[in-house]
Amino acid sequence: MPTGNPTCSVASHDAARTRQQALAADLPVRLTQAVAGMTAAGIDALVLTPGTSLRYLTGYDAMPSERLTALVLPAVGEPFLLVPELERLGAMSSPAVRDGLELATWSETENAAAVVGARLSGPADGTRTVGIDDTMQARHLLRLGEAMPGVRQVLAGRVLDALRLVKQPAELAELRAAGAAIDRVHARVGRWLRPGRTERQVGADLAAAIAEEHAEVDFVIVGSGPNGASPHHSLSDRVIESGDPVVVDIGGVLASGYRSDCTRTYVVGTPHPEFVALYEVLQAAQAAGVAAVETGVTAGSVDAITRAPIAAAGYGAAFPHRTGHGIGLDGHEPPWILDGNGTMLAPGMAFSVEPGIYLEGRFGARIEDIVLVTADGVEPVNTGTHDLVRLPA
Amino acid sequence: MPTGNPTCSVASHDAARTRQQALAADLPVRLTQAVAGMTAAGIDALVLTPGTSLRYLTGYDAMPSERLTALVLPAVGEPFLLVPELERLGAMSSPAVRDGLELATWSETENAAAVVGARLSGPADGTRTVGIDDTMQARHLLRLGEAMPGVRQVLAGRVLDALRLVKQPAELAELRAAGAAIDRVHARVGRWLRPGRTERQVGADLAAAIAEEHAEVDFVIVGSGPNGASPHHSLSDRVIESGDPVVVDIGGVLASGYRSDCTRTYVVGTPHPEFVALYEVLQAAQAAGVAAVETGVTAGSVDAITRAPIAAAGYGAAFPHRTGHGIGLDGHEPPWILDGNGTMLAPGMAFSVEPGIYLEGRFGARIEDIVLVTADGVEPVNTGTHDLVRLPA
Repeated sequence: MPTGNPTCSVASHDAARTRQQALAADLPVRLTQAVAGMTAAGIDALVLTPGTSLRYLTGYDAMPSERLTALVLPAVGEPFLLVPELERLGAMSSPAVRDGLELATWSETENAAAVVGARLSGPADGTRTVGIDDTMQARHLLRLGEAMPGVRQVLAGRVLDALRLVKQPAELAELRAAGAAIDRVHARVGRWLRPGRTERQVGADLAAAIAEEHAEVDFVIVGSGPNGASPHHSLSDRVIESGDPVVVDIGGVLASGYRSDCTRTYVVGTPHPEFVALYEVLQAAQAAGVAAVETGVTAGSVDAITRAPIAAAGYGAAFPHRTGHGIGLDGHEPPWILDGNGTMLAPGMAFSVEPGIYLEGRFGARIEDIVLVTADGVEPVNTGTHDLVRLPA
Repeated sequence: MPTGNPTCSVASHDAARTRQQALAADLPVRLTQAVAGMTAAGIDALVLTPGTSLRYLTGYDAMPSERLTALVLPAVGEPFLLVPELERLGAMSSPAVRDGLELATWSETENAAAVVGARLSGPADGTRTVGIDDTMQARHLLRLGEAMPGVRQVLAGRVLDALRLVKQPAELAELRAAGAAIDRVHARVGRWLRPGRTERQVGADLAAAIAEEHAEVDFVIVGSGPNGASPHHSLSDRVIESGDPVVVDIGGVLASGYRSDCTRTYVVGTPHPEFVALYEVLQAAQAAGVAAVETGVTAGSVDAITRAPIAAAGYGAAFPHRTGHGIGLDGHEPPWILDGNGTMLAPGMAFSVEPGIYLEGRFGARIEDIVLVTADGVEPVNTGTHDLVRLPA
């Protein structure tokens, strides 16, 4: 929900506005790069629906819906943004349209996919392959397919992932600001996390704090005791007990759309000795993973280096997920820090390093930082303590 | 964000739990009806990804992501739910899995689409047509297509829309509860809406109130002055001025997933005389639309009856959108109250009646109720005043 934060200071508003202007200045070069990428990939046009790729290329932050909104970007010829008539005024105020991108509309009783099909020439005229937004809804994809028979549909990610993978300076500034924002929330967790409260109650306090520090809440995970052993647990009515380890994985969205994502593990009261030992293994593994990040190594090698100390301690099977994921406008995007991924790290890439150890029925732990790849190493955007945070029972 | 409301009373918690149990009791019959619908439509299997159809059939409320989660429901044979290994514990606690639905998992380095393809037999064995979730992301759809070459992909909505269109009693109870919740928020708008405040500030207060009355915020529109002329405006930093009409269109999501959606138009101070006249036309049109709802009439005729008085007053072109949309687990779902839609209204259908009049650069107005079709007429779930609400300047 795009609800603003009325209490945030004028100074931080101004800083955010300056950063947003820097982001908007990058839009024209992104469109040019996308066209170059399409040509290299043999794709004749991209069709992008509301989501982060549309926002990346146009600055237009539209909601996915049953009504088709699409940026149509041909390799040859002029791009246009097609929107439902009732969203025309909103689209007019988007950065790319203000900058001259053609705006077209369709009315409630028209077939919007046919409007796209009519504007993109068919196979006889050269349009053979269309790159479809990776997150386009099936209803739009299949209707576009009917409107453009004989045209092959492939994922637009083939072109756009390579662009979005390497963040521009204005994007890195957003990710640093998001990291600082979520660190401020983690610094306050001790106020809310205590025995006798439910995960949901703690989650409501966290959500309010995330909203204060960002434009929106992205997600809140409070995994207490055995719930910490479910990596994608969200919130439950479980009452937190003395001695519980608690995994707190939280993220927010800045007004620019860039995201934070940070996990710390807390314990209320005195934890089980095995948990303390397990946490030490995890902390060393996460530090090794971050230290392994540098230009020229592969994403897969960062995964392997993070995983090794956990496996050596006998917890290999208790770490069932990849080490991390890229982050930017999407909370999860390339590069995937995953076994076998040969993607070579390069300056400007941004991703999480977030190993976990999960013992079903007992407890779990995870430590997550977002890191930026730099010319001479790595820059974590999250700087809060990596030690187990011990709170009073 | 699924954050709960810690202040809500035990009694309302108990009522919500009773309603949720009634919803879960309906799941087995829904699966049976879906299989019958597939057989009639010549579809050999449904593949449903996280979204409202998956939730409708299984009670599993999963988040869409780059990792494939899918309910695979063959016309012949046993269904199964495929989830990423790291979400196994969460999926195990979903109603359908607790009730015996097979749970399968894939690990981080497997090709999940190939797992589905291997389980669904190819064309030689009888699987010729697969019904794809209407909101499935293109990346999953295209990978499933590669994993099942020669299999035709059609929209699962061909089967599921007909089921979801007619709400069961437990669903109607949810929609009534949601309607009452959003009515309580509208009843408090006068506390927050006044000149000198920005739309975003008012929106933050509305979001907090929606969250108090529901499990989550769905959306907040505060369209003041000229922004009211953009039907899908959300929030801006515009400062509300004396004399402004303000369109407030808000919705929330109950813990069960069912939604509210209600628009009222307010004015702070003394409005322009043309606005007052325009509002009277709108109010009469909206009342005529609601009164036209009954079993056996078409959705298109409700649109026509709502539209007629607006056109007669000379505002036809200023009402550019359909009269309404269905509501349930989705905020927008069939039936579409749209020109030419021959869908015959029947008891258990639920949708909005929400005409608007929009004068670009000046102001706009909209009135929206959610209504239920009953055996003998119509039951609005929103009961707040339809008069123009005049607030002090």
